[in-house]
Amino acid sequence: MNETIRTLLNHRSIRSFTDERIPQERVDLLISAAQHAATSNFFQQYSIIDVTDPEKKKTLAKIGNQYYIAEADRLFVLVIDMHRNAKIAEAKEQPTDVLSSTDFFFRAFSDTVIAAQNIVAAAESLGLGTVYLGSILNDPQAVIDLLKLPKFTFPAFGIAVGYPNQSPQLKPRLPKEAVYFENEYRSAEQSLETLKNYDHDVNQYYDLRDANRRVDTFTNQIAKAVSGKQSEAKKKMLETLRSQGLVQY
Amino acid sequence: MNETIRTLLNHRSIRSFTDERIPQERVDLLISAAQHAATSNFFQQYSIIDVTDPEKKKTLAKIGNQYYIAEADRLFVLVIDMHRNAKIAEAKEQPTDVLSSTDFFFRAFSDTVIAAQNIVAAAESLGLGTVYLGSILNDPQAVIDLLKLPKFTFPAFGIAVGYPNQSPQLKPRLPKEAVYFENEYRSAEQSLETLKNYDHDVNQYYDLRDANRRVDTFTNQIAKAVSGKQSEAKKKMLETLRSQGLVQY
Repeated sequence: MNETIRTLLNHRSIRSFTDERIPQERVDLLISAAQHAATSNFFQQYSIIDVTDPEKKKTLAKIGNQYYIAEADRLFVLVIDMHRNAKIAEAKEQPTDVLSSTDFFFRAFSDTVIAAQNIVAAAESLGLGTVYLGSILNDPQAVIDLLKLPKFTFPAFGIAVGYPNQSPQLKPRLPKEAVYFENEYRSAEQSLETLKNYDHDVNQYYDLRDANRRVDTFTNQIAKAVSGKQSEAKKKMLETLRSQGLVQY
Repeated sequence: MNETIRTLLNHRSIRSFTDERIPQERVDLLISAAQHAATSNFFQQYSIIDVTDPEKKKTLAKIGNQYYIAEADRLFVLVIDMHRNAKIAEAKEQPTDVLSSTDFFFRAFSDTVIAAQNIVAAAESLGLGTVYLGSILNDPQAVIDLLKLPKFTFPAFGIAVGYPNQSPQLKPRLPKEAVYFENEYRSAEQSLETLKNYDHDVNQYYDLRDANRRVDTFTNQIAKAVSGKQSEAKKKMLETLRSQGLVQY
């Protein structure tokens, strides 16, 4: 096993950070790692917004309902971005209808997330802690307004990066058989029966992590989450996507 | 700079592979790296299909219109997967409507791509070559049928992995200023004017790569791609997504 794989296998989300600042040349390395990732057809359809304004960080922390968002030294918002290519096409008097398609949305979404994971892997290899912040999508329109995201762009998620002030245990993952198949999808291997041992492992993980808090199983967590209530902003997410010019067909 | 960052900065897509097989324990490492990536709310909403059947590989190569798809030792199809969680919720008699939302689709899509990029980074750290295959989405329904993908799943893309039989040059990326902003999106920094030098670099890259083939600029490529014709299957992609139970609202 090499250093890269060791880094990837050691991933933990970090939600508490020290006050130590990340040197600018390290931030530059993270962005460079993102930029060197693969992109669909070399279209490079993503952007990265480095939110350094403390007020904006606080607003994002409020949207995400997670105070630690504002405490990390760096807060990146990863943006699905076809605006740049729309401008290029318009300047050359070409139509841009295709950027509104689900096809192009898939490409840009993939580009964005691939670049994001390079930031996370690079950061962790440098001893930094990271956490993905899907929670900023609690209110996508508020993020769009805050960061002035134009037509053909949409926030995918945030990533907080800083020096870790905690050292959480590795969370047990689903058994390989549940997520990895040969030649075709096999639904049966995802039955509750096969997840029993895994439920036990997850339960033990939570028990060890914090004796005073929830002790839950994976399948109970999923059942609860799936039956939970969505906010109005989340129910409107497709509408918001479409008002940005995306996923029209 | 450490080994991980060096690996990430050195990424090239590889489209020609030797006959050498990848030892199974290395494949296992790639899957393990994928499984250890972050997932939204720990829902782990992706699956990986390892396509080893030569006939299926050929079919995917035909769908993608790229012969080398069938020539790589390994061909993974990354699947956006909420089927597993639907089954868990159903077994506990919970409703699953929320899995049809754009909100949950975003989470599962992100999980899938994050896991995918760990496969790519891990593979490249082991000296393997990789290429993302968005081309399998030339006909999503054909992939769904071929791999028997059930309700609440959708193919994101393929990844071909093998020992490289070529050593392409590093492709120049957009200037940092075009993709990286502080505190808000800045459209002006993406003007054609600022991309002039980049166009020159890309042009030179193609010229060096193959004196007999296209010599193009980035902005010309984008303008051409955006004005190109979409296949009927691509025009129907949202419909296909929805027939899988996804993105209903």
